Amino acid sequence: MSLKDVAARSGVSFQTASKVLNGNSGVVSPSTRERILRAAADLGYVPNAMARGLVRQASVTIGVLADDFSDLAVSQFVLAAQRAAASRGHGALISSVHADVDADLAVRKLLEYRVDGILVAAPSLEDDPRLGAALRGPLPVVSINRIHGRRVPVVGSDHAVTGTLAAEHLLGLGHRRIGTVTGPRRRQVVQRRMHGFREALRAAGEPLPEQRVVEADWSFESGRAAAHQLLDTDPTVTAVFAHNDVIAVGALKALHERGLRLPDNCSVVGCDDLSFAEYLVPPLTTVRIPFQETGERAATLLLDRIGGRQIRARDLLPVELVVRASTSSP
Amino acid sequence: MSLKDVAARSGVSFQTASKVLNGNSGVVSPSTRERILRAAADLGYVPNAMARGLVRQASVTIGVLADDFSDLAVSQFVLAAQRAAASRGHGALISSVHADVDADLAVRKLLEYRVDGILVAAPSLEDDPRLGAALRGPLPVVSINRIHGRRVPVVGSDHAVTGTLAAEHLLGLGHRRIGTVTGPRRRQVVQRRMHGFREALRAAGEPLPEQRVVEADWSFESGRAAAHQLLDTDPTVTAVFAHNDVIAVGALKALHERGLRLPDNCSVVGCDDLSFAEYLVPPLTTVRIPFQETGERAATLLLDRIGGRQIRARDLLPVELVVRASTSSP
Repeated sequence: MSLKDVAARSGVSFQTASKVLNGNSGVVSPSTRERILRAAADLGYVPNAMARGLVRQASVTIGVLADDFSDLAVSQFVLAAQRAAASRGHGALISSVHADVDADLAVRKLLEYRVDGILVAAPSLEDDPRLGAALRGPLPVVSINRIHGRRVPVVGSDHAVTGTLAAEHLLGLGHRRIGTVTGPRRRQVVQRRMHGFREALRAAGEPLPEQRVVEADWSFESGRAAAHQLLDTDPTVTAVFAHNDVIAVGALKALHERGLRLPDNCSVVGCDDLSFAEYLVPPLTTVRIPFQETGERAATLLLDRIGGRQIRARDLLPVELVVRASTSSP
Repeated sequence: MSLKDVAARSGVSFQTASKVLNGNSGVVSPSTRERILRAAADLGYVPNAMARGLVRQASVTIGVLADDFSDLAVSQFVLAAQRAAASRGHGALISSVHADVDADLAVRKLLEYRVDGILVAAPSLEDDPRLGAALRGPLPVVSINRIHGRRVPVVGSDHAVTGTLAAEHLLGLGHRRIGTVTGPRRRQVVQRRMHGFREALRAAGEPLPEQRVVEADWSFESGRAAAHQLLDTDPTVTAVFAHNDVIAVGALKALHERGLRLPDNCSVVGCDDLSFAEYLVPPLTTVRIPFQETGERAATLLLDRIGGRQIRARDLLPVELVVRASTSSP
């Protein structure tokens, strides 16, 4: 790929592209500079060593504030965001934040490293006013979760649709007595999923009784315990919607412990499509959440914003039902 | 907790502790400074706001070079290392490195952020001379994997013992026709595990024939395919040692596809004890690798080294067999 291709793709002259890729970014607006750098990255344009050194000086650093990357969803997101930044020649610094840590300190740490913007992946802190307060200020922020007291652009998926897809799949198979094991009910994602799920059942003339809703905390063990509780309370349930794949694995375990066979005696739909979902026995039907795409999109939008462009306040990526063998007709 | 307690615990005078905690670290050796800061952190000593600002100046930043934190083993390690650093008031910056990325660039990025030392968690790059070359220099480095061409302190576990424990468990149950699905054979961890496994079988008078060794690449799918290959080649095998839990899940799937019941028709031992291991059906017998403890230890050693202390060239943490229901007598 030549510099000419980069110029053509980014809609600037050869001279302008050359200047920007040689580190002289004062000649264009930040958004044009970003467009040229992106075109160069997309086209795999490799400048000579000296130019590369200069381009690096023009690179930006995004700070990533993540709440728990031993959570496969968060780690996929963070890794994808970092790779998206790297593919454009930019760096990413990751800092973890959790309920025990002063969010203000974590944010200030990132600021000390002079990051150009912050990507937030801390859904467990969506109600934490300290995080909202810490993110006050002029620095561009993009988040995958809402942030208390702040209006920051959010990238994610439509959680209500996730609930709808799960319900419609089970209804379509002929299930009527459907229960759900949810994540923590104070979490927005859970409320949105419940909304979509409940409305789809209602629309089918099968309103969801409260005893068929049991709360878990996203962990394997809580999923197992909640599934037992659900089936203790209502043994007539023939299908369960689990609010993530980890809860689903716990539910599968509980069903096995009760001597129920999947999917003959009970169907289970998960949510996330983590890497292990298709290797479970039986393979898990689940709603795929596009964590990697979300990470890429969030990093791209943050870079856009750092480059001075306007971005949308909400950007929802599509979710998708993945049908496997853990669901069948009742 | 008072400053007096910090002074007593770190074996310095009140005045010295006060000076160091107020940012005047020139008065003591780096190791004494570190001892005082650690005592303050251990005792939960909270200086006043101004002092806290100054202490922060004295805090160090460790850079973490990780190859793939969507790998649960790596992410557990990195998170534990970061939390260990944070609990001592220090920061951690994480940068990812992989075969497609110029290791030199990733290391230089961390240096640009003026990290005080680097923690390496990049086992897939143990043979990559670029990483070894990039880590040349005076900066303290601690790694969980060997680094090509460099002698850096390594923290980890004894992989040969892992292989031995798996073999002895299966032999003790009465198995004689034991196969194994390994990780990539070029990897040192695989060679060490094979060594311990092979020697234990040989000591029991059951040398391991080559057709009972099949290579996989750590992924679910490769584990599944390799287990099929193993049982196609030698259908008399009654037990399988999988070189990690992900491969084990793939093997469980393959056995299920062949209509074999676990553990009645075939036993499987994994390795790692990832969070899902006990929730599989049947729960997975596995050798527990202490990823979190390794991360904590590695961060502590790196901080020791940054503080000027000598540390051991190798620090191996114990592994442990966790017996669950995926193994039984043949």
